[in-house]
Amino acid sequence: MYKETNLRSIAKGISWRFVATGTTIIIVYTFFGRLDLAIAAGLLETILKIALYWGHEKIWQKIRWGKERIEPFNVWFTGLPLSGKTTIADLLYQKLQKLDIPLERIDSKDIRALIPDIGYTREERNRHIKRIGHLIQTLQKNSISTVCSFVSPYRESRKMIRQMVKNNIVVYVKADLETCQQRDYKGVYQKALQGEIKNFTGISDIYEEPQHAEIVIDTEKISPEEAAETIFKYIKKNYIK
Amino acid sequence: MYKETNLRSIAKGISWRFVATGTTIIIVYTFFGRLDLAIAAGLLETILKIALYWGHEKIWQKIRWGKERIEPFNVWFTGLPLSGKTTIADLLYQKLQKLDIPLERIDSKDIRALIPDIGYTREERNRHIKRIGHLIQTLQKNSISTVCSFVSPYRESRKMIRQMVKNNIVVYVKADLETCQQRDYKGVYQKALQGEIKNFTGISDIYEEPQHAEIVIDTEKISPEEAAETIFKYIKKNYIK
Repeated sequence: MYKETNLRSIAKGISWRFVATGTTIIIVYTFFGRLDLAIAAGLLETILKIALYWGHEKIWQKIRWGKERIEPFNVWFTGLPLSGKTTIADLLYQKLQKLDIPLERIDSKDIRALIPDIGYTREERNRHIKRIGHLIQTLQKNSISTVCSFVSPYRESRKMIRQMVKNNIVVYVKADLETCQQRDYKGVYQKALQGEIKNFTGISDIYEEPQHAEIVIDTEKISPEEAAETIFKYIKKNYIK
Repeated sequence: MYKETNLRSIAKGISWRFVATGTTIIIVYTFFGRLDLAIAAGLLETILKIALYWGHEKIWQKIRWGKERIEPFNVWFTGLPLSGKTTIADLLYQKLQKLDIPLERIDSKDIRALIPDIGYTREERNRHIKRIGHLIQTLQKNSISTVCSFVSPYRESRKMIRQMVKNNIVVYVKADLETCQQRDYKGVYQKALQGEIKNFTGISDIYEEPQHAEIVIDTEKISPEEAAETIFKYIKKNYIK
């Protein structure tokens, strides 16, 4: 969120005055053909209007009418590990930033890096998602939209998010388990298969497919760039006035 | 965060035009004594300036110079249970709201009500405070200031908050253990003494007094209202331009 510095306000005021007074002088000169009087009128106008404009602004600042809260939305990416959630979410975030709306990116790995020991049991995951829900709520109260990417394998936690936040857009990033395993540059599927990682979604824990996702991205068919563009258009159409 | 509706912008534009054109007509009439020409000049000016003003605004919207991020602060209330943190923090929050800055209130009991089972061991408390630190960071990135009240009994967790956030103001709400126990309308001290609540700060867990608090409030000497006013003045002096 930005505010104007005093210097900027003054510079802007002066630059507008040049434009405005210039116009007045030209008009008066055109009508009456007297340059001296035209300039005098222009200068008098300048002094008067600086004061009047200031007063006019002050009065309007006190009027609440016509001010509208910016309506935030939440994009919730769900899908198997390595399905491509983070990649698409990052691309979408970049696109949304250009719209100049208050925006926050929340990714599972950042949160888990910051606060380790969250755990991967059903109960721990649900509690974790609830905390994220609270974070989104707090941000939304301040008109900040969010782009979240979490495996979020259980219906109950995705449903909880939907109940907690406004304008929720679930994006299901669909990829075959085989495809995700082939993309396993982190070696996490390998570790899960060997039992080194427990409760690993897709291997030793269930992924419950979303049934009410607003958008389904089939990563076998479209590229991350195309996916981000599809979601971006959906948001622009439905949530950006 | 608010934005102007189109209707408000138009209404504001029209109301300013009345003021501005009126001034021009009066000036031209005063100089030349011809009301018909004065009105014609005023009307011509109106049409021209609506277009010019619009263009002028558009150009300035593209200029980044002179826009400044709103600098957020964090007020961190610490003290024994029932020392009066929440009461003073609520009063301060009300005062700060009048300044029309982006602001969020974070209270221990709200977070713990929302996400139970956080626990009260040293490790669990520290992890909890770290999460709050992350929440403040995220809000600060969006220029939102925070008023937080947490027992936060350990130096290490308060130090962590200081390292994580910007413009941290620690307020130590000082009250004798006896005073807090007398105020025990919740019956929590009673339960702690009977061993029903474990790790209860002041009874079965330590409270490490802050040594670097920006503000110390002695609740035996000043009222909550006076305390809030003191902190409010401190913030206004140091963080509100």
